[in-house]
Amino acid sequence: MNNACALEFTRPPSPLLIEPQIRCALVEDMGRAGDITSELTIPAAQRLEARLVARKPGRIAGLIAAEIAFRLAGPDLRFATAAPDGSQVAAGALLATITGPARAILTAERVALNFLGHLSGVATATAALVKAVEGTKARIVCTRKTLPNLRILQKYAVRCGGGFNHRFGLDDAILIKDNHIAAAGGIRPALERVRAGLGHMTKIEIEVDTLGQLEEALALGADTILLDNMAPDELRRAVAIAKGRAVLEASGNVTLQSVRAIAESGVDYISSGAITHSAVNLDIGLDV
Amino acid sequence: MNNACALEFTRPPSPLLIEPQIRCALVEDMGRAGDITSELTIPAAQRLEARLVARKPGRIAGLIAAEIAFRLAGPDLRFATAAPDGSQVAAGALLATITGPARAILTAERVALNFLGHLSGVATATAALVKAVEGTKARIVCTRKTLPNLRILQKYAVRCGGGFNHRFGLDDAILIKDNHIAAAGGIRPALERVRAGLGHMTKIEIEVDTLGQLEEALALGADTILLDNMAPDELRRAVAIAKGRAVLEASGNVTLQSVRAIAESGVDYISSGAITHSAVNLDIGLDV
Amino acid sequence: MNNACALEFTRPPSPLLIEPQIRCALVEDMGRAGDITSELTIPAAQRLEARLVARKPGRIAGLIAAEIAFRLAGPDLRFATAAPDGSQVAAGALLATITGPARAILTAERVALNFLGHLSGVATATAALVKAVEGTKARIVCTRKTLPNLRILQKYAVRCGGGFNHRFGLDDAILIKDNHIAAAGGIRPALERVRAGLGHMTKIEIEVDTLGQLEEALALGADTILLDNMAPDELRRAVAIAKGRAVLEASGNVTLQSVRAIAESGVDYISSGAITHSAVNLDIGLDV
Amino acid sequence: MNNACALEFTRPPSPLLIEPQIRCALVEDMGRAGDITSELTIPAAQRLEARLVARKPGRIAGLIAAEIAFRLAGPDLRFATAAPDGSQVAAGALLATITGPARAILTAERVALNFLGHLSGVATATAALVKAVEGTKARIVCTRKTLPNLRILQKYAVRCGGGFNHRFGLDDAILIKDNHIAAAGGIRPALERVRAGLGHMTKIEIEVDTLGQLEEALALGADTILLDNMAPDELRRAVAIAKGRAVLEASGNVTLQSVRAIAESGVDYISSGAITHSAVNLDIGLDV
Amino acid sequence: MNNACALEFTRPPSPLLIEPQIRCALVEDMGRAGDITSELTIPAAQRLEARLVARKPGRIAGLIAAEIAFRLAGPDLRFATAAPDGSQVAAGALLATITGPARAILTAERVALNFLGHLSGVATATAALVKAVEGTKARIVCTRKTLPNLRILQKYAVRCGGGFNHRFGLDDAILIKDNHIAAAGGIRPALERVRAGLGHMTKIEIEVDTLGQLEEALALGADTILLDNMAPDELRRAVAIAKGRAVLEASGNVTLQSVRAIAESGVDYISSGAITHSAVNLDIGLDV
Amino acid sequence: MNNACALEFTRPPSPLLIEPQIRCALVEDMGRAGDITSELTIPAAQRLEARLVARKPGRIAGLIAAEIAFRLAGPDLRFATAAPDGSQVAAGALLATITGPARAILTAERVALNFLGHLSGVATATAALVKAVEGTKARIVCTRKTLPNLRILQKYAVRCGGGFNHRFGLDDAILIKDNHIAAAGGIRPALERVRAGLGHMTKIEIEVDTLGQLEEALALGADTILLDNMAPDELRRAVAIAKGRAVLEASGNVTLQSVRAIAESGVDYISSGAITHSAVNLDIGLDV
Repeated sequence: MNNACALEFTRPPSPLLIEPQIRCALVEDMGRAGDITSELTIPAAQRLEARLVARKPGRIAGLIAAEIAFRLAGPDLRFATAAPDGSQVAAGALLATITGPARAILTAERVALNFLGHLSGVATATAALVKAVEGTKARIVCTRKTLPNLRILQKYAVRCGGGFNHRFGLDDAILIKDNHIAAAGGIRPALERVRAGLGHMTKIEIEVDTLGQLEEALALGADTILLDNMAPDELRRAVAIAKGRAVLEASGNVTLQSVRAIAESGVDYISSGAITHSAVNLDIGLDV
Repeated sequence: MNNACALEFTRPPSPLLIEPQIRCALVEDMGRAGDITSELTIPAAQRLEARLVARKPGRIAGLIAAEIAFRLAGPDLRFATAAPDGSQVAAGALLATITGPARAILTAERVALNFLGHLSGVATATAALVKAVEGTKARIVCTRKTLPNLRILQKYAVRCGGGFNHRFGLDDAILIKDNHIAAAGGIRPALERVRAGLGHMTKIEIEVDTLGQLEEALALGADTILLDNMAPDELRRAVAIAKGRAVLEASGNVTLQSVRAIAESGVDYISSGAITHSAVNLDIGLDV
Repeated sequence: MNNACALEFTRPPSPLLIEPQIRCALVEDMGRAGDITSELTIPAAQRLEARLVARKPGRIAGLIAAEIAFRLAGPDLRFATAAPDGSQVAAGALLATITGPARAILTAERVALNFLGHLSGVATATAALVKAVEGTKARIVCTRKTLPNLRILQKYAVRCGGGFNHRFGLDDAILIKDNHIAAAGGIRPALERVRAGLGHMTKIEIEVDTLGQLEEALALGADTILLDNMAPDELRRAVAIAKGRAVLEASGNVTLQSVRAIAESGVDYISSGAITHSAVNLDIGLDV
Repeated sequence: MNNACALEFTRPPSPLLIEPQIRCALVEDMGRAGDITSELTIPAAQRLEARLVARKPGRIAGLIAAEIAFRLAGPDLRFATAAPDGSQVAAGALLATITGPARAILTAERVALNFLGHLSGVATATAALVKAVEGTKARIVCTRKTLPNLRILQKYAVRCGGGFNHRFGLDDAILIKDNHIAAAGGIRPALERVRAGLGHMTKIEIEVDTLGQLEEALALGADTILLDNMAPDELRRAVAIAKGRAVLEASGNVTLQSVRAIAESGVDYISSGAITHSAVNLDIGLDV
Repeated sequence: MNNACALEFTRPPSPLLIEPQIRCALVEDMGRAGDITSELTIPAAQRLEARLVARKPGRIAGLIAAEIAFRLAGPDLRFATAAPDGSQVAAGALLATITGPARAILTAERVALNFLGHLSGVATATAALVKAVEGTKARIVCTRKTLPNLRILQKYAVRCGGGFNHRFGLDDAILIKDNHIAAAGGIRPALERVRAGLGHMTKIEIEVDTLGQLEEALALGADTILLDNMAPDELRRAVAIAKGRAVLEASGNVTLQSVRAIAESGVDYISSGAITHSAVNLDIGLDV
Repeated sequence: MNNACALEFTRPPSPLLIEPQIRCALVEDMGRAGDITSELTIPAAQRLEARLVARKPGRIAGLIAAEIAFRLAGPDLRFATAAPDGSQVAAGALLATITGPARAILTAERVALNFLGHLSGVATATAALVKAVEGTKARIVCTRKTLPNLRILQKYAVRCGGGFNHRFGLDDAILIKDNHIAAAGGIRPALERVRAGLGHMTKIEIEVDTLGQLEEALALGADTILLDNMAPDELRRAVAIAKGRAVLEASGNVTLQSVRAIAESGVDYISSGAITHSAVNLDIGLDV
């Protein structure tokens, strides 16, 4: 298991899944009266060549969304990608060139940049963690701590950063947490209830806080065990106990500083909420 | 002009404007099969009392969204607010208590926290800037650099942080930037074209890069002048030149470190994109 | 300030803002079974050349909506505009020629005409008021008394008639009316509360019924003052009192008969609800 | 056949069919920032009793839409109807009383009045025609010349005015016009094609311009024959020819002046586009 | 009246009416993460030629929906129809060839087949009944017993099977059943109430259980009489009584075994719920 | 592994996921004019007690959808469930009693029955297969061969029938079929590519046609292996080869006749498309 090949698999989401949201964002910005500044100051026939340029170094994600935003505002404009999603770029790098009606380009500019800057921020934060664990077997994964209604695009940005995706929602995998265990009356009854009602195509993860719980969960055969808030030493012991009987995921206090030590414990996956819920916008501008 | 009274005016958005988005976020998380973990492990009749608690100090925003999320998942649950939006709280502070069906509460938990943590992050970042300029006449305002489809709630979070709102979109005020000026053939023709086509209820702002442009814009009577990327000294000269003939707004390089010096230049408004596009999630948890 | 240049600025709304509504109107008319008459009587391959023709003189608005309606029904048809929106036409004037599949053209005919006839009615009513005040400085503006869910297009039709737009909604400008004044405890507290909570990019208008209220509002610095239901003589006194310190808008009893006298009082804007809520359809037909 | 009992059958449309549109109209008016004037000037706790009052005499329609608008803005307010839809009222008549939060009532006021004034205008125009034909057997019906996306409510307003409904759309009845006849190669092939493809539960109407065409259509057995733009004398001859073999509908040049003569020709139905496409708003106000 | 020409009139529904539903079905299948199997295993540039092939003999319906599904997933693919909707095909028959990106074709495959197999099942079941009554004057019609939100397409599939359409919904024709008769106080008051409130373009059908009721309904002049659950002998007597004064429709216990005897009674229409609510999927596959 | 406990886990989908679709189905049936028959024949104040009754024996599913349909039409009616979803009932069994306004109940009747009859048909077909394999370890599962936009409810009906759910869509598990294997260049590269790009919470299934392929897939470690169209003897050999190293699923030619022999081969899961794509409606009526 390693990250080298992940970028082959950024897998851009189908326009069927993301166009509605991009369209909404344009309408959110245009309101009722539309881009009154551009319409009043720029002649209808004026054309423009504009360039999307990174102002800071980073990992690019969201050009596919920016392109859709520009095309929705100006169906006939030309959008030529220079540094596709997943590229690591230097400050000043050209990302794409847009040629077309000046009004349409300026109308979509802010929405396109809002998507692109945010998603590139997610990818950049992910790439930093990925780089920090290079050489270990640990993979960086995201969580469900995403910004509302941006999950598909944020999960894609994580892939552009070289990370992997955890669950997309409550429904595509089981994750049994402490409240579930308490409600079910223990790890065993929780897992038994899940197995009794679940089909064969859904993975089961269970969160444990102690090595004792870990042994119980291993004995009962969970697919993945979430080791929450354990220090690297404890994680190492957990890896030794598990001996590959389950996939091990570490979470909690994952920062650029801490992540290497966590990875070196030998866990398989390290999950971070911060890469999606607290990503710093990557500064990207539109130059005319 | 001061910020003291701003919190009287957090003005929560009408549910008519935000409920659709919160509903979508729940559906985004529930997918097709729903919260299979809770449904399989927790008896349908089990009830829960849960508490929203701040893990870090900060300014709260988004409890109104969290409440809607919980109520959509469990129409009959009780949601009692302890520290309403706009409150400045310490780590450990109780924000709200939720009582009702365990499944519904756990199903909505993540979506509620995603709204609440993010919006409180925006409010906290805003409040820090507001505090830094205390005693000056400068007001902190947001921009259109918001996360897609979260503008109404982010603008509200800015108000919860003691800030004020700039334009909500392209259509509710004129903001003439360099590209518009270039396309129109100068500041004068740009303003003349705008005035010829615009009604009487829309304010006009124009961005200037130099004090020479500032004088031209003042002479032509813009309502607001955006001083982009000027150093405090230059801002001070701009204030002296303007003599109150227009509202002055400073933007560019606004950080917690730089904002006080900018404010002391005497400008009326300081706008920050970072408070909305790069806010760090405020850590808030649900304790059972 | 004059109206001469307004037509340069009809500013057609972006298809992103109006296509959904036109699509809905087609579906409203097609129901579930669609255009059964055309489908049963007209061979699928039959083509048609049809012409949109004004049966009465008037000001045209809504060809952009008609074109979208026809194109939605028949993506490949040709729509050639002869007299674009904003044109003043005589009875019998050719507005546009449509060439394409007969079924598609007849299916969209009624919806296209419903938009075009109504919006041209709005434009024609507006143009009549605009003409009546020619030579004065008064501009004609619309109100929020629009037909439900047609606001964007009606506001556009007003521009096509040579008028200007007032607020697009409750949120893009402040308009303090008697109920607000009463609730706030007077003009002064109302304005102070607004200024304390409002950013710098929103204009403030206040409605006054007497010249005494006018003086109070002027002293407090409102951007615009709405003089409601004042006779021309009283309006003239208001203009003399204001001396340009605020924009003055007259409303109430604005008819083709009364509007000239109102305009000659020297007010800046005259607002009419009737041009949007009671416009008489302009008779336009589709000739084959 | 007479109109006396029509008002028993105003049949208000189900909220399932009209609430979405009323919700949209509120959102159209509230935009993104909402009712900033009321929120800034009126204390959140303030309550109001307001009264919907007719300023002019007329036939009321649309109180059901106004009630939904107020309830959407303020779920807990009380709406007490005094003069229900279908009532003929004098100037000054109380239509309904609304008690509840002041902000909610003022926020919904304009949208509620936009529905109510327009639909009452449609009902009043209809009632005038209905009254003019009193004592004849003719019924007044509407057409598909309705304002976009208001068809369900306008058709209801016509019923409130004592009129009857023609087709709701292209799909619920056949109406063969001249273009269809030309395309099919004559009245006979047009009717034959329709009968060959149509089920048994759809009525067939055919438009004729001459008495010769009328005889052909009667011989072929259409359910209804539309006599377009015939003078009263010609209509009388048509009635004599038809001898009850088909329902006869007259259309074209139907005004308050002409309608009585048309009705006295003995036709069964008289259709008017003007009652829906050119209705003058009935002046209704909200008094506090 | 006969069925021979019905296939000329399959009348495919406008894409405006069915595309939204097909788009939803694709999104339903793609969820959030999309077609992860194809994206991970198939190179993005790989192209495919695939063929839709009937595995069993039957009547085809729904190729228009399949084509829309494929085009939505891959806007540039080529879809060439070999056996259009309405065709009767043998096992092994080629229905259409699709050429384009392999991923897009495989992503849309299941949704396209779900529409096509189901609708062809409806058409095949209909065609079997139509064939069974060949030579009689009876036409086969569907009911409102359709699968939720598939009515437009199922009604179309019935036409592809050579059947005719009954009501599309509650609103396009009157069908008075026993509960309505009981509530109104009898057949006469029910019909009188309907006539008093209804316009001239809606047909009236009434359900009768006995020949006595039939005579009452005939005397009162209903357009269509629904003979529910009558044996062929009783139907024959009904036909003799009616003497063409109303259209007669038989329903209840309509199977491939019983339908011929029902048809030979001389009724005009025979309605079947099973052709839409219990159609067996026609096995159609996609061969690469 | 057995089915006994499955009924504990029918897990009704959240109203958030299914109400929109039920609302659409009501609007689909009500069209624009609504339930004109009930509105014209039944007094508005009339109340009704109605009973949902099974006309045939079967397994019930969809009462939750029927209840939502009735409540949407009549928010105040009472719906009392007698035999909840998942019940096995005899002909004549009372399922639920509905008390409320007669018009609302009759308006929603058909839509409620369309959901209930169809979903009970799915549950009944599933239950028959489940019963046929009783005593073996095989579980019955559904497929993605569902009716468009009914997947959530059909999957629920399968659970009500005692079956289990396979994938809900393309995105919640990997299923590698022959086309994917061919495109990737074999089973090994297909699995390797999937593992390189996929996170840890998604199961992987691979379809094999021969026992040779089975051994290859087992060696490479797929979670589940789909044995397509193998005869019981071959399945038995597959079970012997696999020795529990992967979950085995049999598909193809699964009928009530064949399923027992398939189950006795020792496979873990048997998947059937027919239970969702070809379910025969369970006859359920509404008695007044």
